[in-house]
Amino acid sequence: MKVLLVYAHPEPASFNAALRDAAIETLVAAGHSVMVSDLYALGFNAVAGPGDVTQRANTEVFNLGLEQMHAVKNGLLATDVQAELDKLLAADLLILQFPMWWFSMPAILKGWIDRVFVFGGAYDFGRTWDNGVFAGKRAMLSVTASAPELAFAPDGRNGDMERVLWPIHAGLLALCGYSVMPPFIAHGIPFVGEEAMVGEVGRYRSHLLGLDDLQPLFFHREADIENYRLKPDVQPATPGQHRGSRRHLPEIGDV
Amino acid sequence: MKVLLVYAHPEPASFNAALRDAAIETLVAAGHSVMVSDLYALGFNAVAGPGDVTQRANTEVFNLGLEQMHAVKNGLLATDVQAELDKLLAADLLILQFPMWWFSMPAILKGWIDRVFVFGGAYDFGRTWDNGVFAGKRAMLSVTASAPELAFAPDGRNGDMERVLWPIHAGLLALCGYSVMPPFIAHGIPFVGEEAMVGEVGRYRSHLLGLDDLQPLFFHREADIENYRLKPDVQPATPGQHRGSRRHLPEIGDV
Repeated sequence: MKVLLVYAHPEPASFNAALRDAAIETLVAAGHSVMVSDLYALGFNAVAGPGDVTQRANTEVFNLGLEQMHAVKNGLLATDVQAELDKLLAADLLILQFPMWWFSMPAILKGWIDRVFVFGGAYDFGRTWDNGVFAGKRAMLSVTASAPELAFAPDGRNGDMERVLWPIHAGLLALCGYSVMPPFIAHGIPFVGEEAMVGEVGRYRSHLLGLDDLQPLFFHREADIENYRLKPDVQPATPGQHRGSRRHLPEIGDV
Repeated sequence: MKVLLVYAHPEPASFNAALRDAAIETLVAAGHSVMVSDLYALGFNAVAGPGDVTQRANTEVFNLGLEQMHAVKNGLLATDVQAELDKLLAADLLILQFPMWWFSMPAILKGWIDRVFVFGGAYDFGRTWDNGVFAGKRAMLSVTASAPELAFAPDGRNGDMERVLWPIHAGLLALCGYSVMPPFIAHGIPFVGEEAMVGEVGRYRSHLLGLDDLQPLFFHREADIENYRLKPDVQPATPGQHRGSRRHLPEIGDV
């Protein structure tokens, strides 16, 4: 299969780089081809804007989604965006390799997503979730976090890691149709020492080699949804959905 | 009070810009002073890296947090980072104004956070959560989302909005000590029409004028935590923490 590995870390000698190299070596040895987008090495422009297209559909008001739509249909995407989109569309497996910064990804990777997951190319009207553009393809996060695993336990200081990852797992990958594979997460890397880090690289190799035996994460299918919500007889079964009380926002009345 | 309004949208005629302008006008009329960081207008560099400091602590291996720590203590932060940090430290209220892209913020705003919330300045050893640097100050999100409110209901297609916002609310704002105020969220803006948009601007003005009467969102205090988790007798009471089953990740064994 074809793999696209998107890597976002500023330091070539980082543990993230070691995971990237282990992935390339392991996947190539298993007979796969690996494309790498090393965003810092590329000097990738992280800021979505008018420069993402070579000719505007509307020169008065800039609407990112509408301009993406127009540009992708007419071959007017900026060269760097088109090059990354081509790789993305060619890949059977997408791996995002990044350090968790502020419970999320580094801005350079967010910018790659903002600019490359173009409306009209990576998603479209009626082409989301299980009808998404990438249906039948797989995606996976490989993340390092400086906090220990316990801090991301369900009752951990930072909240449950599966809820922390929901915006990426659901809001990007599942929304675009990918089968989202269980993430690889290395915890507490700044503090665990060399031996444990070597062990983590080995664990990552096993994770990649065992990917075909892992079930994708569960997300509700379109058939479960009616008027933007789970049908009344569908039990919420993801980290993002529930029917309990809210804690931070007002309850939504019957509309 | 002093307000820092950080605004991240590429289009000057956008609804986000209208919300920004309404906030400035409303807050100034109420006697406050407002600093604005218009990230697109500034051409703000979104990519954290070696350029964030004028002199390295370690010229061999780049570690963002350690370099930030060294630079902030020695006056070696890059000019653009120092300027934003000065505003951040001066502000009694931080408002982040942005369109939700991929269940998160535009990369240019994430980059502002990656670069300006420096280790040793915006957080530090032992200075997080209710002991955080910004304890006693307030922060608030003002977000536009293209999906309707129902899609972000607890059992909505996209998952509960309060879980979607957890990484920002908890992982950035509460972690740095802010009292996190209820967010202002405008839903479905591309589709609601001019009249509804005007109504939303009015609702935002009321939200800002009523801020002193609103309770901050609840986060567990350090006193609730032991060995990175909620103490056994503490009931989880946030959108991020729970004691139910996991859906996407393996359960954590007793360690």
